[in-house]
Amino acid sequence: MSPAAKQILILGGGFAGVYTARALEKLLRPEEATITLVNRENYWVYQPMLSEVISGSIGVANVVSPIRRLCPRTNLVTREIEDIDLANKIVTVSPGFRPRQLKLHYDYLVIALGNVTNFYGMPGMLENALPFKTLADAMVLRNHVIRTLEEADVEEDPELRRKLLTFVVGGGGFSGVEVIAELNDFVRAVKGNYLRLRNQPHRAVLVHSRNRILQEMAEPLALFAQKTLRKRGVEIILEDRLVAATSEKAILKSGVQIPCKTIVCTVPSTLPPVIEKLKCSKEKGKLLTNTDLELKNYEGQVWALGDCTAVKAVSGSEAPPTAQHAIREATTAATNIAAAIRGGGRAQFAFEGLGTLGSLGHGAAVAQIFGVKLSGLIAWVLWRCIYLMKMPGLNRKARIASDWTLHLLFPPDLAQTKLEPESGIQNQHFEAGDVVFQQGDLGDSVYVIEEGECDVLQEMDGSQKLLATLQAGDYFGEMALLSDQSRNATIRARTAMNVLIIPKDDFNKLRHSVPAFGEIFRALARQRAQPAVNTSDSVGT
Amino acid sequence: MSPAAKQILILGGGFAGVYTARALEKLLRPEEATITLVNRENYWVYQPMLSEVISGSIGVANVVSPIRRLCPRTNLVTREIEDIDLANKIVTVSPGFRPRQLKLHYDYLVIALGNVTNFYGMPGMLENALPFKTLADAMVLRNHVIRTLEEADVEEDPELRRKLLTFVVGGGGFSGVEVIAELNDFVRAVKGNYLRLRNQPHRAVLVHSRNRILQEMAEPLALFAQKTLRKRGVEIILEDRLVAATSEKAILKSGVQIPCKTIVCTVPSTLPPVIEKLKCSKEKGKLLTNTDLELKNYEGQVWALGDCTAVKAVSGSEAPPTAQHAIREATTAATNIAAAIRGGGRAQFAFEGLGTLGSLGHGAAVAQIFGVKLSGLIAWVLWRCIYLMKMPGLNRKARIASDWTLHLLFPPDLAQTKLEPESGIQNQHFEAGDVVFQQGDLGDSVYVIEEGECDVLQEMDGSQKLLATLQAGDYFGEMALLSDQSRNATIRARTAMNVLIIPKDDFNKLRHSVPAFGEIFRALARQRAQPAVNTSDSVGT
Repeated sequence: MSPAAKQILILGGGFAGVYTARALEKLLRPEEATITLVNRENYWVYQPMLSEVISGSIGVANVVSPIRRLCPRTNLVTREIEDIDLANKIVTVSPGFRPRQLKLHYDYLVIALGNVTNFYGMPGMLENALPFKTLADAMVLRNHVIRTLEEADVEEDPELRRKLLTFVVGGGGFSGVEVIAELNDFVRAVKGNYLRLRNQPHRAVLVHSRNRILQEMAEPLALFAQKTLRKRGVEIILEDRLVAATSEKAILKSGVQIPCKTIVCTVPSTLPPVIEKLKCSKEKGKLLTNTDLELKNYEGQVWALGDCTAVKAVSGSEAPPTAQHAIREATTAATNIAAAIRGGGRAQFAFEGLGTLGSLGHGAAVAQIFGVKLSGLIAWVLWRCIYLMKMPGLNRKARIASDWTLHLLFPPDLAQTKLEPESGIQNQHFEAGDVVFQQGDLGDSVYVIEEGECDVLQEMDGSQKLLATLQAGDYFGEMALLSDQSRNATIRARTAMNVLIIPKDDFNKLRHSVPAFGEIFRALARQRAQPAVNTSDSVGT
Repeated sequence: MSPAAKQILILGGGFAGVYTARALEKLLRPEEATITLVNRENYWVYQPMLSEVISGSIGVANVVSPIRRLCPRTNLVTREIEDIDLANKIVTVSPGFRPRQLKLHYDYLVIALGNVTNFYGMPGMLENALPFKTLADAMVLRNHVIRTLEEADVEEDPELRRKLLTFVVGGGGFSGVEVIAELNDFVRAVKGNYLRLRNQPHRAVLVHSRNRILQEMAEPLALFAQKTLRKRGVEIILEDRLVAATSEKAILKSGVQIPCKTIVCTVPSTLPPVIEKLKCSKEKGKLLTNTDLELKNYEGQVWALGDCTAVKAVSGSEAPPTAQHAIREATTAATNIAAAIRGGGRAQFAFEGLGTLGSLGHGAAVAQIFGVKLSGLIAWVLWRCIYLMKMPGLNRKARIASDWTLHLLFPPDLAQTKLEPESGIQNQHFEAGDVVFQQGDLGDSVYVIEEGECDVLQEMDGSQKLLATLQAGDYFGEMALLSDQSRNATIRARTAMNVLIIPKDDFNKLRHSVPAFGEIFRALARQRAQPAVNTSDSVGT
């Protein structure tokens, strides 16, 4: 690395960021520039194939590619980006093993941070809906689905079994359609291995806000897609959308409630917080650039591209958030950065898109390429060929081809790798009427009401008695934990209610180490255990 | 399932449990018996190949096999076993989505629960050493190793970088040897992809308590293994063992300390708690059976086999805890259960072992089969052939063969899948002199001392001042969290110290929802922020 080398800093490791680094490695010599890329993961996700991880038709590790191999001359910093200081040309990233922030200085900056999932204003979604963006999301979803099948196979209660066998996906764009198709294919393929589920129906529900799915495609293709999915057993609910969730159901805008234990939400995305707090020219929150992809007022210094940017082609058309556009934006940005460093021709973004492709699960897809519309098996073969060709590197191509071959020959894998985070202290949402826990259940957590009200009900001699109504700031569930017995009352939400759940393990660690914390609950339990003077004082749960 | 069918319940899904179920499926008709198997995972781990997951030479999903496919007629219950009631013939398993225990009744019981990792009496090991038994363990270790490489590549401090590049494995049996060999191979293979690590040395250290590794093999083979490992860069420390660990180092019995961020412990195993509390005849804690593998005093009703059992062959020799023995024990038990149900010949356990095989990483192994000793490449090829042949099912055989082929052609994958549990409230151990945090660090947690003492030190005008000494029951670290500033003092352990760590997120959730909890710390912070009247009252951290 030469002392005269310019520091190029790329933020984000999606298509836009990684392809900018790749292009720069080709355009610039090591003594001209040092390239650094910051991304929270050390791999780049091949988004078009991510949903295939659900069914296992591609192995988990093969749908991603290590950024260090894709950009061998780029320094990778695997951290979160906490702050961008455009005035002083400094980017602050999160700490690693040692709790100190790292500050990175740059001469040229590329912002390609994409977007993030956002459940703001949708009660209970953060706690109960699974996003679908990263490799971890795909693995968590796959394992969650296998867990619901395992539990459904053991479960005696038919109502809970139906919930366990219902899968709801919000959003009928490419991502939502691919997820519901793969999920449905997977459940159909493995259900035969569950002795008690073989003859049980399952529900796969796709919820979409418009009057047809795949808005990005021509209507005949979208209708074909709907027909294909429905033929395979997927229910499609149109002109409705997810607005809330609890651990027991999905709630739609129309008021429809779908009892289920699996909700995937592919819809709501927003800009990353670090972009939101960035003070510069924006359009609907997105970064504003010229057709050279330079950030307004920071020309020659900062480039912005990908989904966090309002990119307009020379023709004035807005670039949609797709991989093919991001790759061309990367070439444009890299050309202009190289020109800024050592002169030479500049480039303008003028790409108008080649077409769109969407998979509908095994053996079916829809495609619209150079104006030609294709559907069914031929579109699916085309889909596989095009995306396999586009995957960079022979290593990944060979691995994916091998996975696909094995998937054609053998049934999908169904090992559940229990790697999901342990529960820990967490928030939860309940709707009015929901049961938080039942009398007789094991005491596994303490609850603190943050918002809303609930009733404490006790079954006695065959009739149910209302012992008390609790509200924000009240605790419940402590008695079963302190006495190590099962719940002696049922708790039912009276209104929509948000609670903090402290699991038994954490509760016991805290009361052991911070005696004053335990005393808060012990005092309450003592008070509640006393013969009722007025009802609200005798609530043992 | 016929009403007259007997209920056979198998506890454990290792070699012993799964092969018993497979044998029973062949011996008994569905109307004769219903077979149920309880295991905490829905897959069976092919232990001999588990270490290959570390280097990625076998894909994560291919080293396990779904129990439902291995035993298609067996009901699988994917839960933890909480209690075995031999008198009433009831097994209680842990709750699933609903907090209710499930009780399983049986006519015939098979106990094959193996053993579990146990760090009792080894301070800090539970918090800092990684076990290596399950698929999740292998995935966590692989991801942890990649994380240390990512961080080492960014780290400027040479001391911390050396720690990040040091990997310690405890135990020189087959498992420990295979882990250190694979880990060392992997780090050597991928280090070139890290621009700043290419020329940095790494340390792979194997610690073993005896005077040579691989005690199960003949001495010349063990010495060959030691030579091979050392040639590949592995340090072998003999006649010493891991006794304690902190987040910064491994501590050996001899007093040697190895600064490192990765400790794997393959040694200490104990019986599962549910076996420990079982009241029946035992030998050194293990279940005692006759050569028919019937549990003493429960003949004709309960069979015990595998690593939780003291199995003796007809010759009187004790069966070692290996796969080949477990498989033969399973056949014996299944034959005798079938005989109990419908009469017929009984079997006695008389297997004496065929030999032993151990891999030393890519291209090298040691083998001792029918008295013949082999080492090097030929033993490695034999190792691969034998274990591939022994893997049940064409599906897995094909997948593993394909993985091995791709691994020969392409460099190993290095994508880090961040699926490790979020930190949450946890315990940690420090040795005397260890720094808990440094003045100037970001405030990321609050600490409660459970045992031991620490000093609060403040850097001021170039000199370090002792502000206070804290002891069991004291809290520290609250001030930086409450004021959202960096640490204004350094905390150093004065003695060995155990603490409870409450991370910022959990701390904030708790003090928001349980105001009395926040008040405990706010009062302390107010007191410490006041001008010091005596030193122990002015400890802001």
